Amino acid sequence: MLIVQKFGGTSVANTERIKSVAARVAKYHAKGDQIVVVVSAMSGVTDGLIKLAKEIMPLPSEREMDVLLATGEQTTIALTAIALHALGLPAASLTGAQAGIVTDGVHTKAKIQNITPRKIHELLNADKVVIVAGFQGQTREGQITTLGRGGSDLTAIALAAALKANLCQIYTDVDGVYTADPRLVPTARKLTEISYDEMLELASLGAKVMQSRSVEFAKKFGVVFEVRSSLNDNPGTIVKEETKGMEDVVIRGVSLDKNQAKMTLVGVPDRPGIAASIFKSLADGAINVDMIVQNASHGSETPATDLSFTVDRADLLKAGKIIDELRSSIGIRDVVAAEKMGKLSIVGVGMRSHSGVAAKMFDTLAQAGINIEMISTSEIKISVVIELSKAEPAMRAVHAAFLG
Amino acid sequence: MLIVQKFGGTSVANTERIKSVAARVAKYHAKGDQIVVVVSAMSGVTDGLIKLAKEIMPLPSEREMDVLLATGEQTTIALTAIALHALGLPAASLTGAQAGIVTDGVHTKAKIQNITPRKIHELLNADKVVIVAGFQGQTREGQITTLGRGGSDLTAIALAAALKANLCQIYTDVDGVYTADPRLVPTARKLTEISYDEMLELASLGAKVMQSRSVEFAKKFGVVFEVRSSLNDNPGTIVKEETKGMEDVVIRGVSLDKNQAKMTLVGVPDRPGIAASIFKSLADGAINVDMIVQNASHGSETPATDLSFTVDRADLLKAGKIIDELRSSIGIRDVVAAEKMGKLSIVGVGMRSHSGVAAKMFDTLAQAGINIEMISTSEIKISVVIELSKAEPAMRAVHAAFLG
Repeated sequence: MLIVQKFGGTSVANTERIKSVAARVAKYHAKGDQIVVVVSAMSGVTDGLIKLAKEIMPLPSEREMDVLLATGEQTTIALTAIALHALGLPAASLTGAQAGIVTDGVHTKAKIQNITPRKIHELLNADKVVIVAGFQGQTREGQITTLGRGGSDLTAIALAAALKANLCQIYTDVDGVYTADPRLVPTARKLTEISYDEMLELASLGAKVMQSRSVEFAKKFGVVFEVRSSLNDNPGTIVKEETKGMEDVVIRGVSLDKNQAKMTLVGVPDRPGIAASIFKSLADGAINVDMIVQNASHGSETPATDLSFTVDRADLLKAGKIIDELRSSIGIRDVVAAEKMGKLSIVGVGMRSHSGVAAKMFDTLAQAGINIEMISTSEIKISVVIELSKAEPAMRAVHAAFLG
Repeated sequence: MLIVQKFGGTSVANTERIKSVAARVAKYHAKGDQIVVVVSAMSGVTDGLIKLAKEIMPLPSEREMDVLLATGEQTTIALTAIALHALGLPAASLTGAQAGIVTDGVHTKAKIQNITPRKIHELLNADKVVIVAGFQGQTREGQITTLGRGGSDLTAIALAAALKANLCQIYTDVDGVYTADPRLVPTARKLTEISYDEMLELASLGAKVMQSRSVEFAKKFGVVFEVRSSLNDNPGTIVKEETKGMEDVVIRGVSLDKNQAKMTLVGVPDRPGIAASIFKSLADGAINVDMIVQNASHGSETPATDLSFTVDRADLLKAGKIIDELRSSIGIRDVVAAEKMGKLSIVGVGMRSHSGVAAKMFDTLAQAGINIEMISTSEIKISVVIELSKAEPAMRAVHAAFLG
């Protein structure tokens, strides 16, 4: 079997942890598997390098940041190879460039264009464990690039696709994907499997297991992968294409994003183009607007409406300033901000074939005395915005109703 | 003018120092010069990486050590480019591999085989300052290599040769090459110029300005370079091919190696092959023997001789053990070790055309009451081994006699 194993920054945080990673790899190697290991920078290293650069210049060149940050993973690959040698295993390291990972030239958030894993195959054929630096590649012209947040996961999944690996394991500091965050919901269970689409919804809803782009890449190339813990030997969660049986489960999981804030513009003139100008100004200010709800027009002489939207709490102040600048020119009557909001979501492909899911969620919240302020739905997701103070009990109530 | 400027580890030890380097480069750039900057790892970084590797394994793979250590210079090139950007200068960094530095495959002490500086030319033609990682290259097969001690000097000199640079400046923490170590000889003067051969002798005699191999490379390719300080704007010392005028000066400099130890084997059987077997055993033990003196045979029944040699003080114990193992089989009468010895040398191409230099040196030492224990000479060098306790006064006396 050809296995790609990816270990994140906390799994390689120091030489002791790196030795543990090597011991795990050795176990698979002893079974006769061919193994490609993808590693991140040791935790803290990337932040330390960014700090150095910012000591020199607040906004350093992205090309040079890539040259700088790529050293983080390069350090880990060498140390990991040495740790495997210490256990008597043949192993050799490759940087992203050496591994044949070719990207576009968008520094600090490059996209993988193709992989020519000639050297990886050479080393595997010579019976070596191959250690590849995650998060990095090079352009066709030989410039060093990095893939941005979650880049090492992406490297692992892209390599699994290019090598037609039998297995792709993403080792992390959690046991897998849960029906809810176990710190908030004690009855949460680890999922045996989850579909790409469900995983994508959970990722975009604030579940921190993986970045969306890695899951999207896996979906696009049909890479089945397992999210599992580097601290124990428990099986993790398999992420794969939706299967028939998956729809039998109504809800796969519940997630909560506690970093929401809501802004309501009261008495906005109900004319075409007004909403567009408001949200264009916010976008120009790099404010990421999530949910938008527009209420029905008030029945007064000049038609006016109420417009609510949510932003990340960290962006609320900036959003407020942008709205203040527009206020008189557009003629907004009042602005109300609610700083502490939470977004509670339920996700599951089963929603497609089960009716009454939304009704059951709303009913559960009503019975718990929780007021819903905004609602947003997709084919496989229902999100509600509620007061943050009630978000955790709300989450437990919804989890209990759907997942027991 | 095309200038190659090399800055060592202490010159780029932190972000403040890197900013100073950038300011210096900017001054040359303002004059319209094209500049290629070669940098080492920030001081301490390489040792830190070696420590990490040795935490995992006492003797880590040399291939992986090269992957690991190459990150040190890669970090510096990015930070230096950013520091130049902060001053408004266009600049781009290149790793050794990107700069086209091709080496053989002898990891941790690779030799430069050739340089194809296509990318450097491209960047220079685009009016950029080019920052190249010293100490590293890659093999034709794309393996990362490092050049060993003094490797960054070598990178700078090799680049100056390949680019046909007009000037090669080696910035360091001393002002240039002195007639003697100014800490030991207060009257020592900075030299305006010195020949490659003199510089080579001084390097091999323990003067710590530069490694021999960089000077040898410069000599082979006729690269004129200047050793100067990164802490001030004083002109340094020009190192170049011997010129007619150089022979007018009898002695270029005086050097002292304080780390010598002497071992004398008394009553060694005077038979062919005995010396060979002794020094082969020492070489097999990785003991570097420097000077060897054999006295005339004693006029007794079985011909025997006294054999003295010097080793690094750190190797004396090991050398003693090796000799002890041979002692009875060879039949050495007695072994005497002198732990604290110094080697005092005078160097100068002027010796070739001036007679009486050795006599003057010996006479100077005799007048100072210093006993000479061993003597070794080359065409442009005379070395004597003396007691360490008298080495510094001896050095001052010899410096005064030849250099004032």
